[in-house]
Amino acid sequence: MDSNRLSTQLSLETLHGSLTDPAISSMNLLNEIVENYPNAISMAAGRPYEEFFDVRLIHDYLDAYCDHLRRDRKVDEAGVTRTLFQYGTTKGVIADLVARNLAEDENIDAAPESVVITVGAQEAMFLVLRTLRAGDRDVLLAPAPTYVGLTGAALLTDTPVWPVRSTENGIDPDDLVLQLKYADEQGKRVRACYVTPNFANPTGTSMDLPARHRLLEVAEEHGILLLEDNAYGLFGADRLPSLKALDRSANVVYLGSFAKTGMPGARVGYAVADQRLPGGGLLADQLSKLKGMLTVNTSPIAQAVIAGKLLLNDFSLTKANSREIAIYQRNLRLTLGELDRRLGGRTDVSWNTPTGGFFVTVTVPFVVDDELLAHAARDHGVLFTPMHHFYGGKDGFNQLRLSISLLTPELIEEGVARLAALITARLP
Amino acid sequence: MDSNRLSTQLSLETLHGSLTDPAISSMNLLNEIVENYPNAISMAAGRPYEEFFDVRLIHDYLDAYCDHLRRDRKVDEAGVTRTLFQYGTTKGVIADLVARNLAEDENIDAAPESVVITVGAQEAMFLVLRTLRAGDRDVLLAPAPTYVGLTGAALLTDTPVWPVRSTENGIDPDDLVLQLKYADEQGKRVRACYVTPNFANPTGTSMDLPARHRLLEVAEEHGILLLEDNAYGLFGADRLPSLKALDRSANVVYLGSFAKTGMPGARVGYAVADQRLPGGGLLADQLSKLKGMLTVNTSPIAQAVIAGKLLLNDFSLTKANSREIAIYQRNLRLTLGELDRRLGGRTDVSWNTPTGGFFVTVTVPFVVDDELLAHAARDHGVLFTPMHHFYGGKDGFNQLRLSISLLTPELIEEGVARLAALITARLP
Repeated sequence: MDSNRLSTQLSLETLHGSLTDPAISSMNLLNEIVENYPNAISMAAGRPYEEFFDVRLIHDYLDAYCDHLRRDRKVDEAGVTRTLFQYGTTKGVIADLVARNLAEDENIDAAPESVVITVGAQEAMFLVLRTLRAGDRDVLLAPAPTYVGLTGAALLTDTPVWPVRSTENGIDPDDLVLQLKYADEQGKRVRACYVTPNFANPTGTSMDLPARHRLLEVAEEHGILLLEDNAYGLFGADRLPSLKALDRSANVVYLGSFAKTGMPGARVGYAVADQRLPGGGLLADQLSKLKGMLTVNTSPIAQAVIAGKLLLNDFSLTKANSREIAIYQRNLRLTLGELDRRLGGRTDVSWNTPTGGFFVTVTVPFVVDDELLAHAARDHGVLFTPMHHFYGGKDGFNQLRLSISLLTPELIEEGVARLAALITARLP
Repeated sequence: MDSNRLSTQLSLETLHGSLTDPAISSMNLLNEIVENYPNAISMAAGRPYEEFFDVRLIHDYLDAYCDHLRRDRKVDEAGVTRTLFQYGTTKGVIADLVARNLAEDENIDAAPESVVITVGAQEAMFLVLRTLRAGDRDVLLAPAPTYVGLTGAALLTDTPVWPVRSTENGIDPDDLVLQLKYADEQGKRVRACYVTPNFANPTGTSMDLPARHRLLEVAEEHGILLLEDNAYGLFGADRLPSLKALDRSANVVYLGSFAKTGMPGARVGYAVADQRLPGGGLLADQLSKLKGMLTVNTSPIAQAVIAGKLLLNDFSLTKANSREIAIYQRNLRLTLGELDRRLGGRTDVSWNTPTGGFFVTVTVPFVVDDELLAHAARDHGVLFTPMHHFYGGKDGFNQLRLSISLLTPELIEEGVARLAALITARLP
């Protein structure tokens, strides 16, 4: 009876709403399907290429960071040890090195004090949304479809996410203006708009330069923050400046990830939040206050691993990833080529043609749901991601996302062949 | 004008309430005072002893974990590399090793699937509170004074923390019953009660065995969760069983920390949440869902460091910390002895006599606020923590916390002498 009482208290309906949100349940279901078919060719996983991983690199990176502390910062041996072993400052210990990387790779001029090192970009998203969401009026704008991590951080902070129209040229600045007006009419306060100008997850789309300038103008004119996620920016043939590099009025908070360019296992990301607050200090200082209550500080060992990679590559992740960039570019071209070869004659099947990143969007004239995915896995041996997962299950039911990052040319050829067989069988 | 508009949008009053909560502001102020007097003897910092830290250990621990994967789990070289480098499972990769450690050191029988590895115990606290706080009715009970990290996690989840009376025997189970009744009358739903039965931060107090049994009875009878924080349990002369070791009805969620016993810089902790939910699955699975949205997974490199320490010490952190335990015990005895020597004759000054942990509470007949701390730092060269910081600034104004973990015998003698001089000068 007693334990029943506790059990009742713990029924899902009594727990936080995020746990039963359709967006989260659907992602869990998706992961289950993917896990159940380990031998299918996975065009679902957005993980970075693994062939150049080597455990010895972790030791080399740690050593490089320790040497940097000794040599460049004149830290004594006890200080080096303390930096890695002991509790550290909440903002992290490698902000200056991250700032040098941003200057090198992105032409972003970030003051180290505006950088907060986080447990991946995911924690940075949470911290920004937790800081901004103060009450029921507060909403976030984001393109639909959008990255599931953004949806997750919004759920944890009870932040409603209102969609902004997104095209093959990324988020539509004119629709953003309309949505701002609409939110205002509804008595809502828009705290920020999330954007991924480079090779977005899930669509693969990018914004051209005029659209970036126009978006910044809208943000400045309306006094709203842009939360720029740039996890895939390095993986393109032609590189356009990030919003933060173009930002002259501190309207952009830059959400940085090392998961694709550094090492996923380090779980190190960051936010650049150089906005000055009326009472003094930077938005970064507020994020840091909340981080202290959430994870205290990011593991300095994990930070040292990333710092070592930066130090051993002249602060350039473009340089550090030259082989990976070539592989992703090859895989993307090959995937687009195979799609063309297998399905190019069909007018009722289409796909976009990203010039970088990990993802391609395929549009078909039938419903793409988790049932189709299970069928694809079981009967065709191929996995993809139904796009509806990135719409919170509310839209996108005739699209799917292909991921190209983890595959060999042979697997891409075979994967697209299997996908084409599945699609062709469903066409009239 | 435009950037003014953004700036107005970012004024502190428009941001999340936690950022201006007195508890957080006061901790920041405290840290500033402490940082401004780096040469004062710090009896404020609760950091673990540093003298046995050695950077080479990090390499040894990583190697030991990789060898374990190869040898005990028959993982091939690509799998070892992938485990450390790639994204990992949300619950973590070392749950089985943590379960062995809990069996070894705490006589806790934890199923690995009930363990969620987190970014320190701090993230575990957040995840539990975020899971439990579903609406405005939900409150958390906790002893006053309480650990600031608990206050922080509560603030981030907008969870009101209601105080339960605490004595030299820890939280008072009878007052807990009264508070549960009161909350019920007020239409509130008590989601859990936070407790630290062993050498609590900040007071240093512990619960005796009858009080532990009584607390578990109350929890079972009323169907409420106990959140047991056991960060200091290893550092005692006599060890009593933890609540989780005594728990027969899954009323206890165990919040585990490796910051004091493993390595602060790894930032690895965990929750043991073996509560079965009515619909199936464990509370741990729900925590894991939220963790996926917060930090994706805990760095497997950081997990490997902790795992290596466990593997190289037969899974016993008691064994791994034998030297540290001796030092903390010596420092505690010495601090109590010096207090007695310097202030033993005064009836208007008193202190408790913990038998383990890092902390001692001193009670004086005058106000202990941050001004007094600044005076102590500036004019006496000694730092302590005013106890009001652990009451959210609402109580405790004639107490201070002394921390003994980071000092040498010489510094303890001198530190207590300086403190005694300060106190004596203020006495009538």
